Amino acid sequence: MKFILSLLTLTISCAISALEPVDLEPVDLEPVSIIYMIGDGMGPAYTSAYRYYIDNPNTEVIEQTIFDELLVGMASTYPRDNTLVTDSAAAATALATGYKTNNGIVGLGPDLTPLLTLLERAKELGYNTGLVVTSQVNHATPASFIAHIDSRNKYNEIADQYLDHRIASRLKIDLMLGGGLMYFQRKDRNLLAEFDELGYQIITDYRKLVSLKTLPVIGLFAPKGMQHAIDSDDKIRLATMTNKALSLLDEKPFFLLVEGSQIDWCGHSNDIACAMAEVHDFAEALKVAKQYVEQHPNTLLVATADHSTGGLSLGSNGKYLWQASIVREIHASAKSLTKTLLASPNTWQNIWLRETKISLSPKSQEDFQTAIDAWDAILKTEGKNNLIEKKVSAIQQIVIKLINQHSHTGWTSNGHTADDVQIFSMGRSRELFFGSMDNTDIAKKIFTILE
Amino acid sequence: MKFILSLLTLTISCAISALEPVDLEPVDLEPVSIIYMIGDGMGPAYTSAYRYYIDNPNTEVIEQTIFDELLVGMASTYPRDNTLVTDSAAAATALATGYKTNNGIVGLGPDLTPLLTLLERAKELGYNTGLVVTSQVNHATPASFIAHIDSRNKYNEIADQYLDHRIASRLKIDLMLGGGLMYFQRKDRNLLAEFDELGYQIITDYRKLVSLKTLPVIGLFAPKGMQHAIDSDDKIRLATMTNKALSLLDEKPFFLLVEGSQIDWCGHSNDIACAMAEVHDFAEALKVAKQYVEQHPNTLLVATADHSTGGLSLGSNGKYLWQASIVREIHASAKSLTKTLLASPNTWQNIWLRETKISLSPKSQEDFQTAIDAWDAILKTEGKNNLIEKKVSAIQQIVIKLINQHSHTGWTSNGHTADDVQIFSMGRSRELFFGSMDNTDIAKKIFTILE
Repeated sequence: MKFILSLLTLTISCAISALEPVDLEPVDLEPVSIIYMIGDGMGPAYTSAYRYYIDNPNTEVIEQTIFDELLVGMASTYPRDNTLVTDSAAAATALATGYKTNNGIVGLGPDLTPLLTLLERAKELGYNTGLVVTSQVNHATPASFIAHIDSRNKYNEIADQYLDHRIASRLKIDLMLGGGLMYFQRKDRNLLAEFDELGYQIITDYRKLVSLKTLPVIGLFAPKGMQHAIDSDDKIRLATMTNKALSLLDEKPFFLLVEGSQIDWCGHSNDIACAMAEVHDFAEALKVAKQYVEQHPNTLLVATADHSTGGLSLGSNGKYLWQASIVREIHASAKSLTKTLLASPNTWQNIWLRETKISLSPKSQEDFQTAIDAWDAILKTEGKNNLIEKKVSAIQQIVIKLINQHSHTGWTSNGHTADDVQIFSMGRSRELFFGSMDNTDIAKKIFTILE
Repeated sequence: MKFILSLLTLTISCAISALEPVDLEPVDLEPVSIIYMIGDGMGPAYTSAYRYYIDNPNTEVIEQTIFDELLVGMASTYPRDNTLVTDSAAAATALATGYKTNNGIVGLGPDLTPLLTLLERAKELGYNTGLVVTSQVNHATPASFIAHIDSRNKYNEIADQYLDHRIASRLKIDLMLGGGLMYFQRKDRNLLAEFDELGYQIITDYRKLVSLKTLPVIGLFAPKGMQHAIDSDDKIRLATMTNKALSLLDEKPFFLLVEGSQIDWCGHSNDIACAMAEVHDFAEALKVAKQYVEQHPNTLLVATADHSTGGLSLGSNGKYLWQASIVREIHASAKSLTKTLLASPNTWQNIWLRETKISLSPKSQEDFQTAIDAWDAILKTEGKNNLIEKKVSAIQQIVIKLINQHSHTGWTSNGHTADDVQIFSMGRSRELFFGSMDNTDIAKKIFTILE
């Protein structure tokens, strides 16, 4: 109840007014900085897969990964409702507040009671606060640390809350890096202009990231989510942004949320190469965080996943084999690869071989060609441009199926699963996270460090 | 190399003779007893599933399980060959010896070099040794602790080695409980008679388990594997046998291997209710072991899985829901349920509803009836008894599919997967097993305790 009541002390412009002054001073002589990292959708099969994907095939041993180095425990992820399978909103609310809620809800209990978040508590204590994501910055996971709303889909309202909800007249967030420009620069309201007036340095060009010198800052690099890591110029853009965020935040104690947002998105698509590139970016961000903690021991690093996505398994259809080498050779998302293939309808077989190194059987090639021809016939007859996207999507499904078949990658779903996720930690109080716990326990334990 | 060379000191009747006397005395003043438990096929999704399966739906909280209590780490399971997906022989060889081998090989390196096992080392040290399984006692996992052979399928030769291979003239194993009578009482050799001559008390009736009073003992309760837990009179037969084993072994330091053998078998069948009943039996055996360690603190309990089976996920086909309540209501394996249904061809619908509590759609009922009718037509025409088993198998697939569909249980394979598995531990030196490691490390660490 303490955390719930504590929220009443927030100055929220829409409804709740301050009942009493907030103690803005750290309660401890040596406040602990916190780096909280969430690999969205990154269930245990993803980190196992990553070990084999990133392995140097020229050495005899299979090298351990950063995940192996930092593993300390596991967490259950079920939401407050009876589904057992959480969405990102309920999971992130649990990870942000220590309370379970129903799927779809952001920062509120199932009865819509506002819940104090770790980021808010850190701001109450006078911490610097930041979030680094590759989705839009107002997507369910980051939103659950700042906003309080009954539906994750209310993107505009969530963006508004980032500016309107204050803690003792201060904005909650000092640093935001990610995507989501279309929600912050709208016809009905230009939040970026308002942030600018409040002294935030604002950039929308990723190449200007280096130019950020002092807080507060906002960098929004895409209308919604950023490009997939595998399709990006900077394949470790999460790590790059994390590095920048840490350099800006650490002038005083800070709370930083880092989300590998698109591990989940590639998982939803059952696109294994896309997912591995996202896990790689998350792993590189984790290394950046680890290096920071090594240099600043009074920092706690906790990383986990909000849930697992797709029912990924290494091996499928009775085959005792996972072809990591096939996944390793693919350097484009299935969607991007599909567009490349369809751009050269007469030579797609060559491009396929060049881009995937997978030799297709004559039957597979024939089926692929038949599918393209069938769509072209539809497009010729119907002549509608809006069908082109459907064509890409249909052919993309075939591309994904072929890559999964040849690499023996298994998937059971385009949604989430209720399997437990891992916890990784280092630095101050990491021992709190040893063993098995509920996702709400992770937040509760971090709250004890912030108290 | 130390372990490999050490095997040369074993007196193996067929080939290797003792080069030097073996030190039969414990090297430590207080030797540590070891309970080593393997949930065959029990990847992380199984223990997550079990938490929801065993949950008391009448309480608001979801209770933690014995797995949650004892979780300490995770392990990679890849074999020595390049498949990444291990079989039970390579995995058990790694867990028994600390060395990786190729799939299919038992207790030998990939070059067929014999590898010293933990059980053999314990026997060298004068420990009591035991194994409790629900498969045949000469199945790949237990065999990898005692036998050394190039193929797990050589069941008779493996059984022979249990008697023929000695350590300083002593038999390696003092207690065996499980199945496998057909391999130990054969036309060409009656191993049980030979064990009897060597002073072993031998039982083949499970109800006589209580009559076992002193070592050495052998209890073989089925021709091959024992019945599935879900179909057994004693639903926690592994726990019952573990309890008996501990009471017999603990007259002096001991090494006990306990395998939940059939978690894997139910996983291969993609039969979730069957798998959950096996995990329950393993959990109950783990509780028995835990209680023993509480009373005997100089004992190390380590439990893990050799690999995951089936690509299980909780939630499938895009549905954000896992219906644990459906699984909880099913009290027969799919095979047993199928036989019950087929025994009453005119009233199978009623039996289905009674046994599963799942309301089938008219379409599903029609499809089911059509499948039965088609098989009956085949049987009428061909009139061959050997087709009856095929009919049961075909209908069983439909039963499994319906249960998985309605409970939203996902599977990707009838084989194994390369996903990491969990490690559970308590008692002496449990801290050795914190974090992420390779399956060979588990054996290596236990060897350090035995030294």
